Amino acid sequence: MSATEFTGWGAFDKNCVKDGSFKKFTYKPKGWDETDVDIKILYCGVCASDLHTASGGWNPNQDYPQVVGHEIVGIAVKVGSEVTHIKEGDLVGVGAQNDSCLECGQCKNNRESYCDKGQVGTYDGKYYREGNGKGDKSYGGYADMHRAPSHFVVKIPDGLDPAIAAPMLCGGVTVYSPLVQYGAGTTAKDVGIIGIGGLGHFGLIFAKALGANVTAISHSESKKADAEKMGATNFIATHGDDNKWATENRRTLDLIIATTNDAKMPLLDYATLLKPGGHLVFVGAPEEPLPQFPTFPLIMSNIHLTGSAIGSPKIIKEMLELAAKQDIKGWIIKRPLDDVNQVVQDMHASKARYRYVLVNEKNGGKL
Amino acid sequence: MSATEFTGWGAFDKNCVKDGSFKKFTYKPKGWDETDVDIKILYCGVCASDLHTASGGWNPNQDYPQVVGHEIVGIAVKVGSEVTHIKEGDLVGVGAQNDSCLECGQCKNNRESYCDKGQVGTYDGKYYREGNGKGDKSYGGYADMHRAPSHFVVKIPDGLDPAIAAPMLCGGVTVYSPLVQYGAGTTAKDVGIIGIGGLGHFGLIFAKALGANVTAISHSESKKADAEKMGATNFIATHGDDNKWATENRRTLDLIIATTNDAKMPLLDYATLLKPGGHLVFVGAPEEPLPQFPTFPLIMSNIHLTGSAIGSPKIIKEMLELAAKQDIKGWIIKRPLDDVNQVVQDMHASKARYRYVLVNEKNGGKL
Repeated sequence: MSATEFTGWGAFDKNCVKDGSFKKFTYKPKGWDETDVDIKILYCGVCASDLHTASGGWNPNQDYPQVVGHEIVGIAVKVGSEVTHIKEGDLVGVGAQNDSCLECGQCKNNRESYCDKGQVGTYDGKYYREGNGKGDKSYGGYADMHRAPSHFVVKIPDGLDPAIAAPMLCGGVTVYSPLVQYGAGTTAKDVGIIGIGGLGHFGLIFAKALGANVTAISHSESKKADAEKMGATNFIATHGDDNKWATENRRTLDLIIATTNDAKMPLLDYATLLKPGGHLVFVGAPEEPLPQFPTFPLIMSNIHLTGSAIGSPKIIKEMLELAAKQDIKGWIIKRPLDDVNQVVQDMHASKARYRYVLVNEKNGGKL
Repeated sequence: MSATEFTGWGAFDKNCVKDGSFKKFTYKPKGWDETDVDIKILYCGVCASDLHTASGGWNPNQDYPQVVGHEIVGIAVKVGSEVTHIKEGDLVGVGAQNDSCLECGQCKNNRESYCDKGQVGTYDGKYYREGNGKGDKSYGGYADMHRAPSHFVVKIPDGLDPAIAAPMLCGGVTVYSPLVQYGAGTTAKDVGIIGIGGLGHFGLIFAKALGANVTAISHSESKKADAEKMGATNFIATHGDDNKWATENRRTLDLIIATTNDAKMPLLDYATLLKPGGHLVFVGAPEEPLPQFPTFPLIMSNIHLTGSAIGSPKIIKEMLELAAKQDIKGWIIKRPLDDVNQVVQDMHASKARYRYVLVNEKNGGKL
């Protein structure tokens, strides 16, 4: 049924994004363990992390070739004998995390992304648990097939469009997880989302779905109409030389999710927007350190600077169920997998409004 | 009974700490309101803030003369007709905050130090609420008398030595408040205290009292024996060029209270000590911004950088009751108020082990 060799679009050097030079090739997936699931890929979202990794932007010492893509939805075509929650033929998904130790306090508490031994990424990772896959490299979803440890494979709930589900598996849960952790709609009624891109648009959509009053915070007004359609009832544009926007909106937000990758962000002004006790959560990772920050605003307003990494399988499941129940849809643009070279270039040029999803038509994905 | 003029030791210029040139003078307290209490001062702790303010270290544009001191314990000798919780003759205390709006969400939620309109310091403040004191300047506790709005006057519980209580009113509650807020001894079992000085020693003592496992974190081993007597069962010395101490103690603490004023602190290494989800709380305020910090550790460990400002009258009351019940004592050295010039110089020279308390013998304070 599933081959011992998979076929995918590989990144072979750091110019692959700029030049659009991903190449089709075959490779061996991780060694099969009876806790694994093989997935015939229908859809795979295109995440900014894919580009950072393929181009070596986060880490120049890449172990090429890489098969990126970690918003995978497909059919479980081979299910290990020790897997209980997935059966052959199920529609399933895998996000950005493929494995972890499953034994530490974090893993046991549904916080696998903070595993004491580290998470194994769905691509660019190395499996370390005992088994046939130990030491093998992970390959992602710009491909026909994906093999994943079943702990990180979730069922896609009935009624949820699988192409819509795909980009939620990383982009969606990356914002959904901190929204829930910090009480969006309950203890945190007033929520701000910085940046309206792949992550930010999910931030607006899910914050609204959770019952919060949503403020979109963006450099310019260019995405204001979109942001309002996504659920924002307030909009703050931060362009211009003064920080009037910050003083005018001082202490209005309980929670801010920062999806920006801009290391030159006006951090102190963002902090001004928080009510005392509030949280500013980074989910985007600028390649440079944050601007210098004095302790006084932290002390005098008891505000919290923190960050959040993706989300556990449990949280992914909850998010997908909410999406199915409320008919929540990200704004996606479907593109054929075989056009991947044009797609990554368009993504790099910030053309996505707001998430590209690669469609594997050969496997039955629908454009 | 109480005079309309008070006598205190004034800071008249920025050299007063270095030179030991505080001078006795008389001044008018805030205009009397029927919500006020006049306190005949018995004891006043010496806080690092006193020195920062008197010398203009935090703000060079000082409105001299200043009467500093905000760890005041004494006898209520005049009590406004609208005051219900204090009566004449009560042993009472006032900490670092003297007033706030008392109307905003923060004030109404026992978070007066984060008041939307700002806190009025016990010294170097300006009263802004309607009343006879509006626009008047606040004068602190290096004096014979202190006048304070009663909301910020707490009763000292029976059985607690008033000289022991004094430095708890700022130094104590500054660490006690975040210890309680972040669950020391309950959700945060493993607590670290950075810096073993006036604040830090209270951190060790109260973290222990709250049932936490306590780790003292200090530059050198010089205070190790003291820290152990205060309740630390672990000790981390951070001197040396490597950061082995950080990697060896990675993810061991749920909560860290940073009392250091050193802007060059090894912030990233401190963060390494935190378990995922943990909090690093600044209570010391370096005059320079923090070291630059990347977002990756925040994201990959979901740790929180925050700060905390003193504590509400409600929290002060709880702390004093705990201290009375458990017979908790800070390590204090009593000094005569009239020796204030030598005392501030000794404090500046970091000789305090660990808190000086000025004694007003004329008013009945006991050396």
